[in-house]
Amino acid sequence: MLVVLCGEQRPPDMDSIERTATVRYTREDGLAEALPGADALFVYDFLSAAVPDAWPAADRLRWLHIASAGVDPVLFPGLRDSEVVLTNSRGVFDNSIAEYVLGVVLAFAKDFARSLRLQDEIRWLHRETDRIAGRTALVMGTGPIGRAIAVMLRAAGMKVAGIGRRARESDPDFGTVYASAELTDHLPEADYVVAVAPLTEQTKGVFDADAFAAMKPTARFINVGRGELVVTGDLVEALRAERIAGAALDVFDTEPLPAESPLWTMDNVLISPHMSGDFVGWRNTLVEVFADNYERWRTGQPLRNVVDKQLGYVPSGSPGAEERDAS
Amino acid sequence: MLVVLCGEQRPPDMDSIERTATVRYTREDGLAEALPGADALFVYDFLSAAVPDAWPAADRLRWLHIASAGVDPVLFPGLRDSEVVLTNSRGVFDNSIAEYVLGVVLAFAKDFARSLRLQDEIRWLHRETDRIAGRTALVMGTGPIGRAIAVMLRAAGMKVAGIGRRARESDPDFGTVYASAELTDHLPEADYVVAVAPLTEQTKGVFDADAFAAMKPTARFINVGRGELVVTGDLVEALRAERIAGAALDVFDTEPLPAESPLWTMDNVLISPHMSGDFVGWRNTLVEVFADNYERWRTGQPLRNVVDKQLGYVPSGSPGAEERDAS
Repeated sequence: MLVVLCGEQRPPDMDSIERTATVRYTREDGLAEALPGADALFVYDFLSAAVPDAWPAADRLRWLHIASAGVDPVLFPGLRDSEVVLTNSRGVFDNSIAEYVLGVVLAFAKDFARSLRLQDEIRWLHRETDRIAGRTALVMGTGPIGRAIAVMLRAAGMKVAGIGRRARESDPDFGTVYASAELTDHLPEADYVVAVAPLTEQTKGVFDADAFAAMKPTARFINVGRGELVVTGDLVEALRAERIAGAALDVFDTEPLPAESPLWTMDNVLISPHMSGDFVGWRNTLVEVFADNYERWRTGQPLRNVVDKQLGYVPSGSPGAEERDAS
Repeated sequence: MLVVLCGEQRPPDMDSIERTATVRYTREDGLAEALPGADALFVYDFLSAAVPDAWPAADRLRWLHIASAGVDPVLFPGLRDSEVVLTNSRGVFDNSIAEYVLGVVLAFAKDFARSLRLQDEIRWLHRETDRIAGRTALVMGTGPIGRAIAVMLRAAGMKVAGIGRRARESDPDFGTVYASAELTDHLPEADYVVAVAPLTEQTKGVFDADAFAAMKPTARFINVGRGELVVTGDLVEALRAERIAGAALDVFDTEPLPAESPLWTMDNVLISPHMSGDFVGWRNTLVEVFADNYERWRTGQPLRNVVDKQLGYVPSGSPGAEERDAS
């Protein structure tokens, strides 16, 4: 028996799964009632925070799959300490997020926001703009999304380095990866700083006042990871004081971003509503990924994308971490 | 003796040239007075239309260099039929225009203009957006700028084909190049149509109602070449009737774009003021390119970037067409 935690919409394309499983669809408020007797839980509403509260009702759960790359919303002590296997949707968002990041890098370099605002004023105002060739991007997060970003930015002519758990040279995608502990040492080198690390106890709030103070005044900060990687007040202050030149933010510590947030009205900030990876067709792809794992589970094969619940992500090179091409 | 036709500003970094030449700087209205006795003319104000009128005063001119890639403003019959050698600034703008084109492709795919307008309304509205991987771009213009665009778009995962004077397979940058006469046959294949051909009698007005009718309703048209490649009224009508999905326009048949143009206020149009190639430092690079050719001219070496005045551009593979790295 499978429980599917839905938001406003149910997942598409569930027919094949319904042929071999009893599927119980529920919203957040019905989760505790739905879980007793369930063998598997598909968290399709991947931003829901309802799982921890409903957890005591999971009396025979063996597998939880989440329709996202980040697993932080379900990585609470009850799950971490249990025998329940956690899998994620690693691979679905890699290339679309990479395109998005390259897009905002170019939007900053070419001053697109200003062009659009000048257009709205019917104003012809020539400016000189930046090249991206030879500019340096520092990408915090060396999982598949960070790798796709690195590959894309380098293909467009940029220099790229990564920040990961372990320092290493000759990484196939990043070249150099610096250890997280050295983040502040390397921030001064970057024209663009990209946050895409998983949210863990180690990464929470890592972009704080010290980090922003270490960046170039011309640097742009791009967050496509999680809002909680950032101390939002420190970011607001850094932008306000022009200690950095701009930010493109797709994720926030509170979503939707509250109307009273000063970020909305800063003209050096680009806001998007947690959509950088959500290409047309993504919901179908998320269900395909789940269905593939469901078939493996049903037939006793090893699952893909098994999360290391202590680390908080799928370790690269792990047997369940085969790459998927979601394009 | 060298005459420099300036706009509002004189060119920077002219010291080295002034050491070996008598340099006469003039604005448009003084050109006819300045030309008698001049051996060379540096058209630094590259959009000026003043050269044809002043031409009868050029009594010993042997060389004209223009600070742009397009030579259409100076390619009038008097020059074409004369012995005066024409050189351009081929190579300076290639990579910055390529970055710009990739930027607007991504801006369309990721719906950045809408994100910015929603931000201005403090509105959180999730949307699904397009991938660019596997999408097709058709680039009309196979000179160095078109080539840089092709390379950049392909590096970002797109399929690319060119439209040039002669059809050919296995082009190193484009793969396939179709002949200009086949443009309309291939427009239906393109998600993005990029105009970057030189303006000549053959290319003038090639993007007309028939061309827009041949494009996909989802296609975006990008013009970084010359406004006169387009029949503007037909473009406006195609956008208004949603026969194409959008346009990014950096060049116009009248510049600055008049305030009464309907293009300004169409929300599927991105306007920029003829700046796609104008990276920070471009003016210095333009003078470097001129100074290099000036030194060749002074010492009797062959000039670079000699324009074929019948074709209206520097033919690729011609001895004077060595590539320059302007990055």
